[in-house]
Amino acid sequence: MTAIEQTEQLALGTDAQNLLFREARTANSFSAEPVTDEQVQAIYDLVKWAPTSMNQQPLRIVLVRSAEGKQRLLPHLMEGNRAKTEKAPLVAVLAADTEFHENLPRVFPHAPNAKDMFVADDEFRLNSAKLNASLQVAYFILGVRAAGLAAGPMTGFNPAGIDGEFFPDGKQRALVVVNIGKPGENPWFDRLPRLDYDEVVTTV
Amino acid sequence: MTAIEQTEQLALGTDAQNLLFREARTANSFSAEPVTDEQVQAIYDLVKWAPTSMNQQPLRIVLVRSAEGKQRLLPHLMEGNRAKTEKAPLVAVLAADTEFHENLPRVFPHAPNAKDMFVADDEFRLNSAKLNASLQVAYFILGVRAAGLAAGPMTGFNPAGIDGEFFPDGKQRALVVVNIGKPGENPWFDRLPRLDYDEVVTTV
Repeated sequence: MTAIEQTEQLALGTDAQNLLFREARTANSFSAEPVTDEQVQAIYDLVKWAPTSMNQQPLRIVLVRSAEGKQRLLPHLMEGNRAKTEKAPLVAVLAADTEFHENLPRVFPHAPNAKDMFVADDEFRLNSAKLNASLQVAYFILGVRAAGLAAGPMTGFNPAGIDGEFFPDGKQRALVVVNIGKPGENPWFDRLPRLDYDEVVTTV
Repeated sequence: MTAIEQTEQLALGTDAQNLLFREARTANSFSAEPVTDEQVQAIYDLVKWAPTSMNQQPLRIVLVRSAEGKQRLLPHLMEGNRAKTEKAPLVAVLAADTEFHENLPRVFPHAPNAKDMFVADDEFRLNSAKLNASLQVAYFILGVRAAGLAAGPMTGFNPAGIDGEFFPDGKQRALVVVNIGKPGENPWFDRLPRLDYDEVVTTV
């Protein structure tokens, strides 16, 4: 199958394929152009529709915009991530809310006892929060790209440090930190190789 | 901000927004129309470009298409998920490869020692595999929608049962099972409510 044949298998238009996947890249430098609250709200109001188990929606987002906020965040990042994060116009700390189940009676109303299974099993609840918030992290990254912005997702940080600083009640767990903005100078590294289909997919 | 104003904040076209997020729904019944290998390959070759930490790419996919494959899978699903899965034209078991680090010298070649940090710490490796494979699960779900198909992702299954049946060497962990096809009769429930922006997002 050629690249063109592959593209034609998809209902999503080629421009959208390129914007979200083929041409989008992880940015490591950003221009000074601000990212507005309206842009973040539009991103959220798009990606909130993507699915989570039992509509759990455990993702929580702390937008770090101020210089004071940056100074709270930077010490917990790996040293190699600090300079670019300091310069990014907006940084999002994406976390899992381990108390998502408190919302289930409202967001999953047809199963009024759904909350109970999570009350009874803390490990199950934590694992479910992490899995579903991770799905939402991915939706959010694609949402940033859908807004015509570049995302620079990072896992190189001290989670306990960020959790202690931003989530002192212990109920949320940072999963990924994402720099957001328009790309700056020399924003990306060379494209890294991807695994082939046959390395990833088997059929039974 | 009205819905139209929100939509206009985005670079992604309205049709693509609707296809991937606003109008796409989790399907609970499917038509008999097959899902081809070419469609799955086109989905993979689109979503493989989305980012993972250090290009880890831990997602592994088992496509369950045959009646024999279905009979191996169904006993490990929650009872309420069995009938619809049996009828789905294609089912994908999405798993995290806990030995993803073996590929790092090839897929993250500029950091030749990257593999070592995962050799040294099994828990770190497992957590990284789960987080990054979960991101890829979300990319895959949106890729199914990008192909004009409906996805029915499920976490209602016995993970140890699926892992024992499909990954007997113990190296992969099932995260989500996704039914894939064209929607059938009465394919979806009413849209469930989403959390408001102000419930999810704070700014510092």
